[in-house]
Amino acid sequence: MTISGAQTPTAAQVTKSVAPTAGDEGQPASTNVRGAAYPRVHADGRVTFRLKAPGARTVQLQPGGDDNGLGKGPLDMTQGEDGVWTVTTPPAVPGFHYYWFLVDGVATNDPGSETFFGWAKQSSGVEVPEPGTDFYDTKDVPHGEVRSRWYHSQVTGKWRRALVYTPPGYDADPAARFPVLYLQHGSGEDERGWTAQGRANFILDNLIAAGKAIPMLVVMDCGYAEKPGAATPPAPGAPTPFEEVVIRDLIPAIDAAYRTRADREHRAIAGLSMGGAQALQIGLNHPDTFAYLGGFSSPPRGGDTFDPKTAYNGAFRDASAFNAKYRLLWLGAGTAETRTHDRAKAVHEALDAAGIRHVFVDSPGTAHEWQTWRRALHDFAPRLFR
Amino acid sequence: MTISGAQTPTAAQVTKSVAPTAGDEGQPASTNVRGAAYPRVHADGRVTFRLKAPGARTVQLQPGGDDNGLGKGPLDMTQGEDGVWTVTTPPAVPGFHYYWFLVDGVATNDPGSETFFGWAKQSSGVEVPEPGTDFYDTKDVPHGEVRSRWYHSQVTGKWRRALVYTPPGYDADPAARFPVLYLQHGSGEDERGWTAQGRANFILDNLIAAGKAIPMLVVMDCGYAEKPGAATPPAPGAPTPFEEVVIRDLIPAIDAAYRTRADREHRAIAGLSMGGAQALQIGLNHPDTFAYLGGFSSPPRGGDTFDPKTAYNGAFRDASAFNAKYRLLWLGAGTAETRTHDRAKAVHEALDAAGIRHVFVDSPGTAHEWQTWRRALHDFAPRLFR
Repeated sequence: MTISGAQTPTAAQVTKSVAPTAGDEGQPASTNVRGAAYPRVHADGRVTFRLKAPGARTVQLQPGGDDNGLGKGPLDMTQGEDGVWTVTTPPAVPGFHYYWFLVDGVATNDPGSETFFGWAKQSSGVEVPEPGTDFYDTKDVPHGEVRSRWYHSQVTGKWRRALVYTPPGYDADPAARFPVLYLQHGSGEDERGWTAQGRANFILDNLIAAGKAIPMLVVMDCGYAEKPGAATPPAPGAPTPFEEVVIRDLIPAIDAAYRTRADREHRAIAGLSMGGAQALQIGLNHPDTFAYLGGFSSPPRGGDTFDPKTAYNGAFRDASAFNAKYRLLWLGAGTAETRTHDRAKAVHEALDAAGIRHVFVDSPGTAHEWQTWRRALHDFAPRLFR
Repeated sequence: MTISGAQTPTAAQVTKSVAPTAGDEGQPASTNVRGAAYPRVHADGRVTFRLKAPGARTVQLQPGGDDNGLGKGPLDMTQGEDGVWTVTTPPAVPGFHYYWFLVDGVATNDPGSETFFGWAKQSSGVEVPEPGTDFYDTKDVPHGEVRSRWYHSQVTGKWRRALVYTPPGYDADPAARFPVLYLQHGSGEDERGWTAQGRANFILDNLIAAGKAIPMLVVMDCGYAEKPGAATPPAPGAPTPFEEVVIRDLIPAIDAAYRTRADREHRAIAGLSMGGAQALQIGLNHPDTFAYLGGFSSPPRGGDTFDPKTAYNGAFRDASAFNAKYRLLWLGAGTAETRTHDRAKAVHEALDAAGIRHVFVDSPGTAHEWQTWRRALHDFAPRLFR
C-alpha cells in the first residue's frame, strides 16, 4: 500500500532568510523554555531567532543537518542594537527541527530553547506547527505516564535506563495485561527522543482516547551498548551488544516489572533510521519474540540491491512462511528524504514482487526528521495487536 | 539539634586555575554525555574543561554563580593546537556544579555535558565525587521509578507535568498505600531538578534498601504557575498561584492517581531555597494538609528579625499547639552559604527560645548548591512518617 498526499515545503526550498512582516509578531515556540520570547513562529511557518551576543563578530543560525526543515544553513544573523542578533527564516517545514547558533564559528545552544538530545549532544530545537494537524498535541484526553525504569544489564554489566509509556488506566485495573511496543530512536539520539522530540506518549494518548489504538506499553531504550572490554565491533549482520541487551536483559526486565502479555503475538519492535535498522534486524532474527515490525526511514539492508532470497539470512526466502509468521511489516519514509525514500521504495517493490505482505507509507513533504517519524508512529500503532 | 563536621574546600578557596599534574588524567565526569572525554575530574577534585573553538578570540569557564564549588570565575582558558581551549580548576567542592563557557563573552553550553535546567535555561553541569560518600549513587539495590504525570490545573487552565517517584515494589502489591513527600526545586529550576541534579530517586532507593526510610512517593512539581490574565502578583504572604495549584489541583490529582495515604499524617512538604520558602508557606498555611515540613537553605521569612509571635500569621505563636500539630519542622543550610546559614541559625535560635520543636542541620563546607540539598534530603527523609 502506498499513501501519498499534497507536498508541504521541503528543506530544499528553504535557502535564505526573509524580512519579517510588519504586524506578524508570531508566538513563542512551544519548545521554548518557560518565559522565553524567542524563537517565535509566525502563522506562515517563518521562524524568527534571536541571540544577545554583543561580543561576537559573526552569529549564524545552523539548522541540524542538510535535511532540516529550517533550511540548509548556516543563515547569517544581523546585529542590531545592544548586540542582539536576529534572523527570520522563510516558511519552515512543519515539525520539530534541531538547530544551534554559530558564534564566531562555535556551536552554541539557544538559551531560549529547551534542549533535545540529538547529534550526540544536547541541541536546541524548535517546533513549527502543522496547520490542521493535532495528533501529537497535549489534548484534553486521559494521559498515560512516561516512567524512567532502571534495569541491570548482564550484557554490559551496568545499570541502564529505559523510558516506559504506560497507557491511561494502567494502574486502575491491576488485573489487566498489555501488549508492548519496543520503539527505538535514531543515531546520535537516546531513549528520550521518542517522547521529547517525537511526542510518542501524546500520539498514543490521542489514538487510545479515539479508540484507534489498543492500549499498549511503549518501551524506549537507549540503542547504544558496549560489552565490557570488547575490542572489536561485531561483524555485519551478527548480533550487536544492543540486540543482546534487548533479548537477554530488557524484555525480561519489562515482563517482570509490568503486566505485559509476554508472547510474540503481543510484542512489536520498531524504530527510526538507525533504530529502524536495529528493529528489523532484531525482529527478523527473533521470529519467536516479535510478530510486528516497523522500519521508519530505515529500509531493510540492501536498498537497490535488496534480494528477498538472501537478505537477512533468508528471513524473506519463503513468502508464505513469512506471511504466516509476521503480523505486520511496516516500511515508510518521507518523500523529501529522497535517497532513503528511493531505497525504501525499491525494497517495497522487491517485497511486493516476492509476495511478502507488508505496508509502505509515504510521509508527504517531510525529510529525515521527527515529523516523518511522528506520522509513522501514528500510522503504525493502530495496526498493532489486532 | 545542630550537626557539624569537618570542612571541605569552599567556593571562596577556589579562585584561579592550576596546571594539570602529569600522570593524573582523571576520568570523564558522570554528568557527561555518552562518550564525551571532557570535562574530566581528577582524584583530588580538580576538573579539566575543554572546548574546541578555533574561531574564538577568548574562551572562559563560567561557574554558575558566586557560590559555585568550581570557584567564582570566570576562569580564562588557554588555546592550544587546533583551536582547542583548556583549563584545569583547583580542587572543587564535591557535588554538582552548574557551569558554561563564555566564547567571546557569549554564554555557551559544553557539548560534552548533559544539560540541567537551572539559571532559567538549560545549563551544563559537572559532578565532582565526594570521597567516601555514596548515598546518592546508582547502587545494586531495587530501584523505584520516576514517572511523568500530566494533570490538568483548574487554577492555571493548563496541563502541567509533575514527576513522581514511586518506591521499589509499588506495583507489586496493589493493596499497599504510601505516604507522600512533596518536594520543590529552587529559583530558575523546574520539576526535573530534584532527580537530574539532586538524584532524589537514588537517595530514596538507597535509604529504603537500607531500611532507613519508609517507602514513600515523592512528588516534584514545577514551582511556577500563572493564573490566566493575572495582572499583578499576589501580596506578600498571600496565597500564590502555585500554592493554589498544590492545594486545589496537584494533591487531588496525586491522591486520585496513586495509592496514597491521603491524610495530613502521611503528607510532607519540603523544598530548597525558593522551593523551601514555598514549602514552609504552604505547609504553615495548611496545617490540616501537612504534618511534616522542610526548608532546605531557605530559613523562614524574617531571618535576623524573625519573631515567632507574629511570623507566618502567628503559626508559631502557641508553641504547645504547634508542637502537638506538626510532627517535624526541619531547617538547615550549608556552612559555606554564610548569609543564608546565619539567617537560618537566627531563626533556629528564636524557635529554640520559643520552645518550638524542630531540627537544624548543617551541611559542612557546602554552599547554595545541590550537595547541600542532597544531604538535606538524606537527613530529612528518614525522619518522615514515623
